[in-house]
Amino acid sequence: MRMYDLIIKKRNHGTLSDEEIKFIIQGYTKEEIPDYQMSAMMMAIYFQGLNEQETLALTMEMAHSGDILDLSSIEGLKADKHSTGGVGDKTSLVLGPMIASLGIPIAKMSGRGLGHTGGTIDKLESFEGFHTSLTTKQFIDNVNKIKLAIVGQTANLAPADKKLYALRDVTATVDNISLIASSIMSKKLAAGADTIVLDVKTGSGAFMKTQEEAFVLAEEMVKIGQGAGKNTFAIISDMNQPLGNAVGNAVEVKEAIAALDGRGPQDLLELCLTLGSYMLVGTQKASTPEIGRKMLENSIENKSALHKFAEFIKAQGGNEKAVFEPELLPKATIIEDIYSPKAGYVREITTDEVGVASLILGGGRETKESKIDLSVGFKIKKKVGDFVQKGESLAEIHANDLRKLADAKERFINAYNFSEEQISTPTLIKKIVTKER
Amino acid sequence: MRMYDLIIKKRNHGTLSDEEIKFIIQGYTKEEIPDYQMSAMMMAIYFQGLNEQETLALTMEMAHSGDILDLSSIEGLKADKHSTGGVGDKTSLVLGPMIASLGIPIAKMSGRGLGHTGGTIDKLESFEGFHTSLTTKQFIDNVNKIKLAIVGQTANLAPADKKLYALRDVTATVDNISLIASSIMSKKLAAGADTIVLDVKTGSGAFMKTQEEAFVLAEEMVKIGQGAGKNTFAIISDMNQPLGNAVGNAVEVKEAIAALDGRGPQDLLELCLTLGSYMLVGTQKASTPEIGRKMLENSIENKSALHKFAEFIKAQGGNEKAVFEPELLPKATIIEDIYSPKAGYVREITTDEVGVASLILGGGRETKESKIDLSVGFKIKKKVGDFVQKGESLAEIHANDLRKLADAKERFINAYNFSEEQISTPTLIKKIVTKER
Repeated sequence: MRMYDLIIKKRNHGTLSDEEIKFIIQGYTKEEIPDYQMSAMMMAIYFQGLNEQETLALTMEMAHSGDILDLSSIEGLKADKHSTGGVGDKTSLVLGPMIASLGIPIAKMSGRGLGHTGGTIDKLESFEGFHTSLTTKQFIDNVNKIKLAIVGQTANLAPADKKLYALRDVTATVDNISLIASSIMSKKLAAGADTIVLDVKTGSGAFMKTQEEAFVLAEEMVKIGQGAGKNTFAIISDMNQPLGNAVGNAVEVKEAIAALDGRGPQDLLELCLTLGSYMLVGTQKASTPEIGRKMLENSIENKSALHKFAEFIKAQGGNEKAVFEPELLPKATIIEDIYSPKAGYVREITTDEVGVASLILGGGRETKESKIDLSVGFKIKKKVGDFVQKGESLAEIHANDLRKLADAKERFINAYNFSEEQISTPTLIKKIVTKER
Repeated sequence: MRMYDLIIKKRNHGTLSDEEIKFIIQGYTKEEIPDYQMSAMMMAIYFQGLNEQETLALTMEMAHSGDILDLSSIEGLKADKHSTGGVGDKTSLVLGPMIASLGIPIAKMSGRGLGHTGGTIDKLESFEGFHTSLTTKQFIDNVNKIKLAIVGQTANLAPADKKLYALRDVTATVDNISLIASSIMSKKLAAGADTIVLDVKTGSGAFMKTQEEAFVLAEEMVKIGQGAGKNTFAIISDMNQPLGNAVGNAVEVKEAIAALDGRGPQDLLELCLTLGSYMLVGTQKASTPEIGRKMLENSIENKSALHKFAEFIKAQGGNEKAVFEPELLPKATIIEDIYSPKAGYVREITTDEVGVASLILGGGRETKESKIDLSVGFKIKKKVGDFVQKGESLAEIHANDLRKLADAKERFINAYNFSEEQISTPTLIKKIVTKER
């Protein structure tokens, strides 16, 4: 088999066999196939696409290019959730304890990544002493004991995807639904869960700007997951404004605690209940999403989810007292209101821009080396559809540096767009993909 | 400017500006742009194409990526000819002396290359002592004195094209008319002539298998040449059988001498007269191709072309006596007839296969390191449309090794296809492209 012939085949709209895709991915991972042939192949795929069989084969090969997390010694069906990323997205912090409190094992691998705020692990480090450096045995033991543990992503998780994504990123071959879907799913499959629930965000703060794009991606990922023998569901959710009210790290943890305590923002709770109900259906804990939803609501009401969270924090070395006394979490030195420059209904919040404002404050990583300031961020008071008076507070800004505060505040205000007409609250859950079209 | 943005632009069917193409070619030549970005760009071009302006800009940038041969100290308008390559193509050997004998300067750069026979320089080395290692001054002086000189291609002629072609060759991005045309024309433009006549071959022994493809390539190259301010013409000629009767090196030289002496095969003469007439029109030596043709016919009749050839061989150190006593040229030790396995009209000669047979005999280079056997080859006796009896000679094979002879003979016979019906002789000149469509 020669890479040259396979490039011609794809270029001429041919279909690559499983054997051929294996040859490509294994050859590329072992550096037997050079970057310049792989980038030509990626551009050919950009134009000619991949069919369902090819996409599944690509995903499976990438998933198997490194370690596959072996969760077989964990009892019961394991659930995992993945979000395509958005601003103010603290669902993992709320959903994990809710699901675990109902007896479903969650053995989660999480990345740190780059972005407007830290990743789940960064946020959890708001708890003094919390760490993710567990041995595999400790990780498995914790899940068996308390049903919830989180570790950092190992370097050898789907290394083919890592190498290929880096190449696509510099050769303008990222924007292909099959390639995006296989990249995400290869890591999820390598992470070993039985049920995968995908939160596909759409809107101004998401990678997929339109609902149609998000829907196509969701379908593609569900097909891959089902093809790989996993119960897979996708929820398409709105990211035309931040999720919940808090954007940052410690501020988001506080909001997550509030949600577990039954005092969280409505949209955050709604998304957690929707995602969670399918995690329960997928792991056969609930026969319908409606039943699952009731069980989840109950886990909040009876505080079992909140206590599960504290148990989990403690098990990974964190100060669990802060779950009940959130004032123990990091706090910024400057907290100010951001006043509205005009009166009107909030028509739009350019969500990407709110993310950038958080990054400016120091809440996220610009490069791998950046150190995150866990205490900074925003607590939003006015969201889309809300009426605001001129001079009324739009949000609270939490900062540690006056200059960053000024820059971030300006950016934040500019993200808001007002209307004289009344604006309806946007729908949070756009669509649920449970099977192929 | 970033290569990434330019890949996206082309991928999305945008048009690259002259400035952008300059950035790409200069950056790639200087190794500031990596192969993997360039191959993605080439694949994007494969799908989205290049328009006339982009193709011209690409050609000019590649032509200027290294040395441009400065022919300004040669008096008069210089002519050059380029063939896309075929089997038995010895036109340069005949045409050069004919044109030079009429006073038109020919300052030719020629490559050795790989293929079924050697290149023009290899063939000329059949003359004992002939060499092409002239200094630039000697080269120019020779052209000024006798109007004809040939040197080897310098390493620094259009280096961008060399580097890019090598990349395209391994990434399945060769087959694009604009890229093929710009590759050929960049070298021709760097070679400095004022008039360029292109011999675009079509058929089973050519790169362009169909007449339509050859026509599209011819038009593209003529546009580039005109765009670069050169008088450019293209002749589309038949390569569904070898040109003339000889295939090899010394055997082709002997046939070229015969042609200059008025005893050559009709098709070879016809092609030389056609190509030459446009070289004369382009250099303003003749007002019409018909007048040019007469002048060329005259150069054969009065032997001035034959004497010009001898003068040229002598000027470059060769034994010019062999021009008048061709038996002094290399001769194979085994010369045999190849007998026809059946009776009938020759319907088809798979020309590529005749080329392979010549390569098997040792007449061409398989790798850059191969040494050519100048004495081997074929003298074809039956061409398309000819009637042959079973057991009658199809050709003479000239060899120095019995095993190679057997292999080559089998290959040669298999290239022939017979018909019981009468077959008409194929038209040699398919089309002449003098201007844009």
